[in-house]
Amino acid sequence: MKEQLSIVKIGGNVIEDVAALQSFLEHFSKLEGKKILVHGGGKRATHVASKLGIASNMVNGRRITDADTLEVITMVYGGLVNKNIVAKLQGLQVDAIGLTGADINSIYSEKRPVKDIDYGFVGDVKRVNHKSINKLIEADFTPVFCAITHDKNGQLFNTNADTIASELAIGLSELYNVELYFCFEKNGVLKSVADDNSVIEYMDYGTYEQLKHQGAFHDGMLPKLANSFHAIASGVSRVFIGNPTVISNKNQKFTTLYL
Amino acid sequence: MKEQLSIVKIGGNVIEDVAALQSFLEHFSKLEGKKILVHGGGKRATHVASKLGIASNMVNGRRITDADTLEVITMVYGGLVNKNIVAKLQGLQVDAIGLTGADINSIYSEKRPVKDIDYGFVGDVKRVNHKSINKLIEADFTPVFCAITHDKNGQLFNTNADTIASELAIGLSELYNVELYFCFEKNGVLKSVADDNSVIEYMDYGTYEQLKHQGAFHDGMLPKLANSFHAIASGVSRVFIGNPTVISNKNQKFTTLYL
Repeated sequence: MKEQLSIVKIGGNVIEDVAALQSFLEHFSKLEGKKILVHGGGKRATHVASKLGIASNMVNGRRITDADTLEVITMVYGGLVNKNIVAKLQGLQVDAIGLTGADINSIYSEKRPVKDIDYGFVGDVKRVNHKSINKLIEADFTPVFCAITHDKNGQLFNTNADTIASELAIGLSELYNVELYFCFEKNGVLKSVADDNSVIEYMDYGTYEQLKHQGAFHDGMLPKLANSFHAIASGVSRVFIGNPTVISNKNQKFTTLYL
Repeated sequence: MKEQLSIVKIGGNVIEDVAALQSFLEHFSKLEGKKILVHGGGKRATHVASKLGIASNMVNGRRITDADTLEVITMVYGGLVNKNIVAKLQGLQVDAIGLTGADINSIYSEKRPVKDIDYGFVGDVKRVNHKSINKLIEADFTPVFCAITHDKNGQLFNTNADTIASELAIGLSELYNVELYFCFEKNGVLKSVADDNSVIEYMDYGTYEQLKHQGAFHDGMLPKLANSFHAIASGVSRVFIGNPTVISNKNQKFTTLYL
């Protein structure tokens, strides 16, 4: 029986709101057992880029990452957001360590191939170095990953945070019984986006495919669900989608995915 | 007999110049044995702050760090500079891991007390967590520290990079025979600032005090030397001051300090 590991991904809306972030981090600090946090930060990056006079260019919800944009992302994800989360977790007695995929060569990626669109410095994850990451976990540190990877040749890449969370979950399933949480501003996957109580509590792959073809999911939810089912199909024990309190309080509505 | 650990601090001029940084990192990658890199980044921070419309306010060579400036420092030191160095070292087969003092609670500091000047979010180092840092070293990772510390209560602080290097050296002297290198744009401590060949090759504390009272050292050199002698007096084996190639090539002029 493998030991349990929880991997929790939080999105931009939680990070943007100081009180919401602090509340989430308190919940995260109470989550028992070994754990990893993964965060985005796109809204803050857009804000800083705009202040620096760098236009944010999004295609299908993905950021086109030129050299200037990569600098902003490295500053905001790797520095501002990551290190403030680490400091706040230390204040909550969580022995956090902030990482990009370059640190300890934890996540190797390759530049996304150019088909119709050149996404620039965007990397597709090729390998999670679960052995090196596990050295940190075994030392009782709590890794906090931002959405940056590298090519092992000196180049950083922007990589979707949901993808990083699911790839970490898959890689660490070699060693752990992994539970993956996608936390965002809704209570789960909703039947009707306007009704926050319309949570689909259990969703299997068939239902997902069916709803997808009906166009039931909005832009942000589709990659989250695709990542989730990829993770479950690749050895991750359970995937939950819900609001940030779901990690420590299961006495509420949220979505559990299964094959 | 303790094992050797090299701690190398590089300054802003090396970081600013892409070719100089790459050249230094190649030298650093060839440095044998256990090692730690410490970097500044003040010039880049000043540049980004200026682009963001935040004035840089220096008093006696120290940056007054208000909340906006701390954000810039967290972005530039902790993100942009640190993560690019980590990625480049990974490209040179050094298994680097980028850290602030908040990560693994490695460097605890307290806000500098307000006497004549309120430096803002500037921290004076109180404790180096050599046991936690050693877990990373023992795992064959190479820590790369930027000039940020924390108060263990969620607050990041700006801290002088020379001080971080010397405090790390002192803290890790409990476990290692530590050699500390301060690398900068000159070949060592100079008798005459205008003459780069006038390197003082050996300097003891008496000579330092004598030259200091003669006003021989410029603003940047004084805290470097103060940190150096503090380190030697506190258990650090050797302190070298020289250009960035000194770490792998002792067949040139540089300054060795001793008590």
